[in-house]
Amino acid sequence: MMEIAFLGTSASAPSVDRGLSSAIVMFRAQRFLVDCGEGTQRQILRSGLGFKRLDTILLTHGHLDHILGLGGLVSTFARWESSSGLRIYGGEWALDRVRDLMKVVLRGDEPDLRLEFVEILPGVIWQDEYLTVTAFPVIHRGPGCYGFTFEERSRRPFLVDIADALGVPAGPERRKLVGGESIVLASGMVVEPDDVLGEPIPGTKLVFVGDAGRVKDLIPYARSADALVIESTYVGRDADMAARFGHITASQAAGLARDAGVKQLYLVHISRRYSDREILREASKVFPNVIVPRDLDMYSIAREG
Amino acid sequence: MMEIAFLGTSASAPSVDRGLSSAIVMFRAQRFLVDCGEGTQRQILRSGLGFKRLDTILLTHGHLDHILGLGGLVSTFARWESSSGLRIYGGEWALDRVRDLMKVVLRGDEPDLRLEFVEILPGVIWQDEYLTVTAFPVIHRGPGCYGFTFEERSRRPFLVDIADALGVPAGPERRKLVGGESIVLASGMVVEPDDVLGEPIPGTKLVFVGDAGRVKDLIPYARSADALVIESTYVGRDADMAARFGHITASQAAGLARDAGVKQLYLVHISRRYSDREILREASKVFPNVIVPRDLDMYSIAREG
Repeated sequence: MMEIAFLGTSASAPSVDRGLSSAIVMFRAQRFLVDCGEGTQRQILRSGLGFKRLDTILLTHGHLDHILGLGGLVSTFARWESSSGLRIYGGEWALDRVRDLMKVVLRGDEPDLRLEFVEILPGVIWQDEYLTVTAFPVIHRGPGCYGFTFEERSRRPFLVDIADALGVPAGPERRKLVGGESIVLASGMVVEPDDVLGEPIPGTKLVFVGDAGRVKDLIPYARSADALVIESTYVGRDADMAARFGHITASQAAGLARDAGVKQLYLVHISRRYSDREILREASKVFPNVIVPRDLDMYSIAREG
Repeated sequence: MMEIAFLGTSASAPSVDRGLSSAIVMFRAQRFLVDCGEGTQRQILRSGLGFKRLDTILLTHGHLDHILGLGGLVSTFARWESSSGLRIYGGEWALDRVRDLMKVVLRGDEPDLRLEFVEILPGVIWQDEYLTVTAFPVIHRGPGCYGFTFEERSRRPFLVDIADALGVPAGPERRKLVGGESIVLASGMVVEPDDVLGEPIPGTKLVFVGDAGRVKDLIPYARSADALVIESTYVGRDADMAARFGHITASQAAGLARDAGVKQLYLVHISRRYSDREILREASKVFPNVIVPRDLDMYSIAREG
């Protein structure tokens, strides 16, 4: 089960109700801070999730409303929080801008906060034995904008009935088979993993897109996602403005969710211009499973249920 | 009547309840934003005061928790708000740091937002016919730290009884006298302003100190203030830490208010370490009229009452 906490869901400037872009994606012990708009450090405190293990930051792009909070966050980490370091992933342009911001924030007299910048190129950017994070290109204003796929590794279920029928004893032999090793039974019969493992069950898939000016090219990446998070800066009547500023409308976002066979759509990057209801109504006409999260809302995302 | 709105009252890093340093001082049509920690633009929205006429920013010093919010604020002003420009007052070091921050925020392709930097030197830094703002040096970590005195100009009351007795007719003649001109009555008698104007009544005085490591040198500036706003980062049991980091304790702040004959003390820059009650109790033992404001609290400050 993955979880996502929305820390800031406003577009461009904050509103009374919404802070600037940021979210935390959690899977097992791993946490990813996705974008870090102004005020993110306080939202992390308010969320109750705290700063622990928050050492991996992914930036969708380098616009100020997605990165300025790194100033305060890094400043606080450098001064008050025990941190082994921060690893910041972003496109080249975003990282350049963050480096400039760090020059203002860090003056070289800080205790040993290690900052590492990792330039994103399309493809796998992070993985462990349970999870893979893949970056894919997104068209928005400026170069080096990315979306992220968080994908639990698929697993093959152990077919207990078949193992029983073959006479595989419970215990270490079964663990070996699950681990990919063949075994020899007392009868001399060889049992291969393929004999007792079912078809791969795909893992939970969360797709996170920041600002986006186009959706058609995103269909392959969002395909069959359990959750798609994407901007909805405008609504249909302002489609011309959306196009002008490299953003999409609620119905475009919903169209992507429908065309990619997504299970649940989360719309963020909401402008002060619109009520939540207006966004929700427009998107729901195109795709039924839409949520417009509020700041500090948290959701579980699972393959089943 | 002056007003002050506390936008952020936390020390160094935000807490769940308190944002980073910022306040708005208001007198007649004039507004001053004093300090601008991360998240200030959102606090302005939440205060209901809005961005209008918020063109004068005073910085007590250049530490990040007092200036980082200028990144987002200026970015929003440059993109979305009609603004004739911002004038930022600060010590040399603070302004240098803000200029570096502006290099990250402004890329030269913004519409015409005019930014003006005014270096503070001790003395009068702003005035109009109703109000004078004076900067005075404050000892804290680093150079160029300042406090501010907002002082309503004193006025001489018109003595109606005496004017009546002298036979000064109501209307333009009285206005002339108030304006400092002498008049000639129908009888040929000359009436001078001094004849009908009473002793000067001092105006409302608000003294605002940011971070401070010492209070004794501040007594002359805080003398007889109707309101003193000052940091209270530590309490007495942590006096050694306060001294080490160039801060003061609640009782030191209260001692200043007592010694300077201040009417009302407001303690800000509150650390997550302490409860409001702890701060309040310690200060109240030394000086009775203490308030520990919460974010978005607003107070009226008047000479009488």
